[in-house]
Amino acid sequence: MRRIGILTGGGDAPGLNAVIRAAVKTAYNEYRCEVVGIEDGYDGLIADGRARVLAQADIRGILPRGGTILGTANRGNPFARKVIKDGQEVVEDVSHLVGEGFERLGLDGLIVIGGDGTLRIAHELFTRFKLPIVGVPKTIDNDLGGTDVTFGFDTALHIATEAFDRLHTTAESHHRVMVLELMGRDAGFIPLHAGVAGGADVILIPEMPFDIEVMCKAIKQRAAFGSKFSLVAVSEGARAKGGEQVFSRPGDAVYVPRLGGIGYKVGAMIEKCTSIETRVTVLGHLQRGGGPSPFDRWLGTRFGAGAVHLAASGGWGRMVGLRGQRIEDVAIADAIAVPKRVDPNGEPVRTAKGLGISFG
Amino acid sequence: MRRIGILTGGGDAPGLNAVIRAAVKTAYNEYRCEVVGIEDGYDGLIADGRARVLAQADIRGILPRGGTILGTANRGNPFARKVIKDGQEVVEDVSHLVGEGFERLGLDGLIVIGGDGTLRIAHELFTRFKLPIVGVPKTIDNDLGGTDVTFGFDTALHIATEAFDRLHTTAESHHRVMVLELMGRDAGFIPLHAGVAGGADVILIPEMPFDIEVMCKAIKQRAAFGSKFSLVAVSEGARAKGGEQVFSRPGDAVYVPRLGGIGYKVGAMIEKCTSIETRVTVLGHLQRGGGPSPFDRWLGTRFGAGAVHLAASGGWGRMVGLRGQRIEDVAIADAIAVPKRVDPNGEPVRTAKGLGISFG
Amino acid sequence: MRRIGILTGGGDAPGLNAVIRAAVKTAYNEYRCEVVGIEDGYDGLIADGRARVLAQADIRGILPRGGTILGTANRGNPFARKVIKDGQEVVEDVSHLVGEGFERLGLDGLIVIGGDGTLRIAHELFTRFKLPIVGVPKTIDNDLGGTDVTFGFDTALHIATEAFDRLHTTAESHHRVMVLELMGRDAGFIPLHAGVAGGADVILIPEMPFDIEVMCKAIKQRAAFGSKFSLVAVSEGARAKGGEQVFSRPGDAVYVPRLGGIGYKVGAMIEKCTSIETRVTVLGHLQRGGGPSPFDRWLGTRFGAGAVHLAASGGWGRMVGLRGQRIEDVAIADAIAVPKRVDPNGEPVRTAKGLGISFG
Amino acid sequence: MRRIGILTGGGDAPGLNAVIRAAVKTAYNEYRCEVVGIEDGYDGLIADGRARVLAQADIRGILPRGGTILGTANRGNPFARKVIKDGQEVVEDVSHLVGEGFERLGLDGLIVIGGDGTLRIAHELFTRFKLPIVGVPKTIDNDLGGTDVTFGFDTALHIATEAFDRLHTTAESHHRVMVLELMGRDAGFIPLHAGVAGGADVILIPEMPFDIEVMCKAIKQRAAFGSKFSLVAVSEGARAKGGEQVFSRPGDAVYVPRLGGIGYKVGAMIEKCTSIETRVTVLGHLQRGGGPSPFDRWLGTRFGAGAVHLAASGGWGRMVGLRGQRIEDVAIADAIAVPKRVDPNGEPVRTAKGLGISFG
Repeated sequence: MRRIGILTGGGDAPGLNAVIRAAVKTAYNEYRCEVVGIEDGYDGLIADGRARVLAQADIRGILPRGGTILGTANRGNPFARKVIKDGQEVVEDVSHLVGEGFERLGLDGLIVIGGDGTLRIAHELFTRFKLPIVGVPKTIDNDLGGTDVTFGFDTALHIATEAFDRLHTTAESHHRVMVLELMGRDAGFIPLHAGVAGGADVILIPEMPFDIEVMCKAIKQRAAFGSKFSLVAVSEGARAKGGEQVFSRPGDAVYVPRLGGIGYKVGAMIEKCTSIETRVTVLGHLQRGGGPSPFDRWLGTRFGAGAVHLAASGGWGRMVGLRGQRIEDVAIADAIAVPKRVDPNGEPVRTAKGLGISFG
Repeated sequence: MRRIGILTGGGDAPGLNAVIRAAVKTAYNEYRCEVVGIEDGYDGLIADGRARVLAQADIRGILPRGGTILGTANRGNPFARKVIKDGQEVVEDVSHLVGEGFERLGLDGLIVIGGDGTLRIAHELFTRFKLPIVGVPKTIDNDLGGTDVTFGFDTALHIATEAFDRLHTTAESHHRVMVLELMGRDAGFIPLHAGVAGGADVILIPEMPFDIEVMCKAIKQRAAFGSKFSLVAVSEGARAKGGEQVFSRPGDAVYVPRLGGIGYKVGAMIEKCTSIETRVTVLGHLQRGGGPSPFDRWLGTRFGAGAVHLAASGGWGRMVGLRGQRIEDVAIADAIAVPKRVDPNGEPVRTAKGLGISFG
Repeated sequence: MRRIGILTGGGDAPGLNAVIRAAVKTAYNEYRCEVVGIEDGYDGLIADGRARVLAQADIRGILPRGGTILGTANRGNPFARKVIKDGQEVVEDVSHLVGEGFERLGLDGLIVIGGDGTLRIAHELFTRFKLPIVGVPKTIDNDLGGTDVTFGFDTALHIATEAFDRLHTTAESHHRVMVLELMGRDAGFIPLHAGVAGGADVILIPEMPFDIEVMCKAIKQRAAFGSKFSLVAVSEGARAKGGEQVFSRPGDAVYVPRLGGIGYKVGAMIEKCTSIETRVTVLGHLQRGGGPSPFDRWLGTRFGAGAVHLAASGGWGRMVGLRGQRIEDVAIADAIAVPKRVDPNGEPVRTAKGLGISFG
Repeated sequence: MRRIGILTGGGDAPGLNAVIRAAVKTAYNEYRCEVVGIEDGYDGLIADGRARVLAQADIRGILPRGGTILGTANRGNPFARKVIKDGQEVVEDVSHLVGEGFERLGLDGLIVIGGDGTLRIAHELFTRFKLPIVGVPKTIDNDLGGTDVTFGFDTALHIATEAFDRLHTTAESHHRVMVLELMGRDAGFIPLHAGVAGGADVILIPEMPFDIEVMCKAIKQRAAFGSKFSLVAVSEGARAKGGEQVFSRPGDAVYVPRLGGIGYKVGAMIEKCTSIETRVTVLGHLQRGGGPSPFDRWLGTRFGAGAVHLAASGGWGRMVGLRGQRIEDVAIADAIAVPKRVDPNGEPVRTAKGLGISFG
């Protein structure tokens, strides 16, 4: 193995740079292998001139920095190219260009860092074109199989928990209900963990459709016992029993952004049925930006090193993951087969309920 | 002076507890005077049973805590009470009850901590009922006259600047424009200071109506010179030239909260005229909650001590303030006469322009 | 189970209050059981008048607070009482008083939160006096068996990593070696994790005695390749090959505090053999104080709830622990039998070495 | 003005990069003037090949970073060069080389950013060689005349106040006295401000020699009234009445570092005369490293822009400074003539005393 590529796909997450840095250092120190940084996800692989060998200077000082020095792209299918044929706009499949990119760059392998979507494409490239690819899981929501946890999640919890700490004092001073909408389209790990860590009184997650009456009763009961304020954690993918999801990804559209966002809907419901002044905050992009926590730097570093070792041992089609305290690897196919969800009957939810937290 | 009251009115601000703590300690240590804590602003003064002498135990550990241990209220006129007379709802002026509250509580004076609205009422109580009141200025926006700066502003800058730091890495990784809507209904100090400290490329404030073309040209120019991302600071009270303000106070209403909020409007304009992907974040209540910065603890402490000395010397109708490095006092009437605004021709704006920041 | 006691022993750790809060809430909500808070470790159990039933008001707002609301004590054997007999000072064993304390307080069980020393005593009380005790592991160093990790460790990593981030810029600006002495008397988990997360170039831990020549060669090599600064993480229990430990616990004595502390020794060695200006910082008590990280709040909460369930199911003599993502329980005897150490041949150390980090 | 130089001298301070960045941007945008970055203080001016024109890429992303991208040096007189003459080591004055450096680099002026020592040299270069120099004040201790405050001080307060917050919970849990030694060789602004902001009970500063009895009495009195713990802020330059300063600059020597440091001395005194367990922490270099606070970024930016304007208007021999809310300029000669000290009779000290804080 003399030259491997590395790319980051999908939304950014704190810890990506730790992965890149560890991969470059490990590849060089352990295998005298150089690493080619590919820009903006798969785009940089099929376009020319958007990749470069990463030198020491490129990775200096990036460990504490958020985002990805390689850039990323998270718009749909990167291999669907629109062309005009016979006066008609036609979508062409250009995924075969990836193989050409491999050759042009002289790659012996490729490390793909990404979430569900990015890894599905990696899996397809591996099975369909037999490209030598290893994966590194990335998901702030923590909703990916094949690993106990990924980098970015811990940092997101910090930001969300700090937000609760801040809202807490205002809630208490003004005798208000403060609603905080957090990430979690399909999986409610962030609202669950940050809600417990931030002292929330109500937590609404996609896995457990809520009942408005139950939620409001909990808030009114608190008020009756002297706590005239409440904190509510709402997953962007939360929904009422029998209702539908109303979320849009934080910032999916600019103009009608969170118009019908669940956070605001929940806030309106609470104010209506409890008559307690209610305020809503949508944390949005703040959850995924900025410097990674020590845990995320540590985990990203181990993933980056692990991915290089995995590639060196020819573990193509596989992905690094954390199991307990150990770095292991699994087939990408298995990792993307079953997404991870909060278990409504698991110990964490039971613990939260035992604290008196209502799930609506 | 053997007993003085203290109350906090209007929105909460980091540093309120530092004022309260310093007042209680200073009053006791320097004058053997006790301090009565009045709950929820003026409400606690006219209602019975909502005030208590503050003991050492009440103020223990409150210095690093946000909010106010006294509670606050920020709904309109506290002295307008709705009653039914002859089958009609009539609004009664109950401001005379304040004097009765003074007597009931045995107060020799009252320290009122609040912003423009709260201080206007304090001024009226002083002039109309001759009540012995001293003021402490509180405004996160920094828009109050009579003092160079107040507590809460520095903490808000921390939160806003940290938000820019977080958005920066996402903007860079995704080649996006990130818009951050910040507080500042009439005065743009927070967007100006946090924008400069956070490396913003565009700053829009109420004092300087913006031109969409100019703003978008600045962003496109950056892109042309290789910086394919931009950060935009928007005051909630910003408005286009010839346009009107479209803000609603963060959280003024629950249901249609920031629907037409200027942050989202600006984001839409930018995406439309630059064709660069744009995302919007509204920082809202996060700016006013949580623990105060060292400066705000320090200033709040000096204001609390200063207010007690001012009361002890009979400086009724006056307010403490910071002038340069000194604690001074001014007539409340003067402080509320002329609100403070960013000077479009002042050195700070010129400095920002010299950095290449566009004001639209 | 109608009444259980809870106490905290040994040095404080961020997350203790989360355990206490969760225990009180869970005991009440799930079992209608009240919790008696015992002051200052075992001292409050054998003395009279130093325990009280914990009410909701006692645990309000303690989740984000460091330390322990119960107080703690970490001086030697709490059951060795010095008395004068026949004019001679004699040490009496008063451990039988614990049983009396149990009766006096009417306890059906006791939750002991503590590290190795505190849990050994708990184990003895359980085996010798058959007292119904369950344990919760507490160790900032992470050196306790029976659990993958405990609360406090993650917060310590935050503080240590932030310290490296701060020292980094000074090291770089001044072209210096900066040495940071961290906790870890027998186990080097903190220096290892924080060193990797903070970008250290050298990590010295008790499990891997260092060679001065090797360490200095690594630093000189960096300088030769253009990095005229280095960061060195030193465990307080680190020692040179063939040498002895020279540490004293942070703050063990006041007057001759870190005189011969290993951090300073290492700094002197480096400056002598590399001729590069070297500075030393001892992080000391800052590592264990202050508010817990989200992870530590979350883990402490689960441990507190888990301990109550363990007691309710009669799991006396056992301790809660984290295994992978699950809360499990083990015999206290097993947990204290084999302390946890960094494996010099394990994947984490290999990963660090692969990054180019020298272990001396 | 077509080309000016910029250098940073003395110890690093958070905000230096903000000054550099603002100078480069302002010089280019306002005057089409380029800025030459000179490495490692005056060293880079007299040596060849250690200066370069700063491009946009050089200053990208440096605003939130601590330290100085130019490097610095803080060893004695940079113009005293040791040479061997007639077999004897002789010290030669090479300050005339500065003028040659000016010519070699083609500078029309020089911005010198530094503290007392660095500015004294600047003043000498200006008066003796008539070199066109403007100054920017830098001192974390805040002990420099000619400006109300400088960048770095606010960041140091953050770190010191956070340290108190952390020590507070340990002090309370363990019923201990915690001593924190802070910067301040001759001026006690950091211990005074951080002590008040961090809730210290005792503050010892160079300007107010302390009496051991008074200090211990204050601590014992607190214990008598139920507060069995105390926090003590000690300036590194504090001294007992009639005693001498025993400090060494944080890290002045490696081997016998803080052996006789005042923090440890004070800790020993307290433990001896109060019999309360006492622990000591020396914050040292952590106070000056890491990212600058928003205020320090804001002030550094204004200073950098102000220095360019001052140079453009030919204000040689002068220095920018902050007066109240305004950027002004003063003769360097005046700024270094009278150092700034805490006024023992001023309002800030009186405020602290009114809170019950003992100054020993």
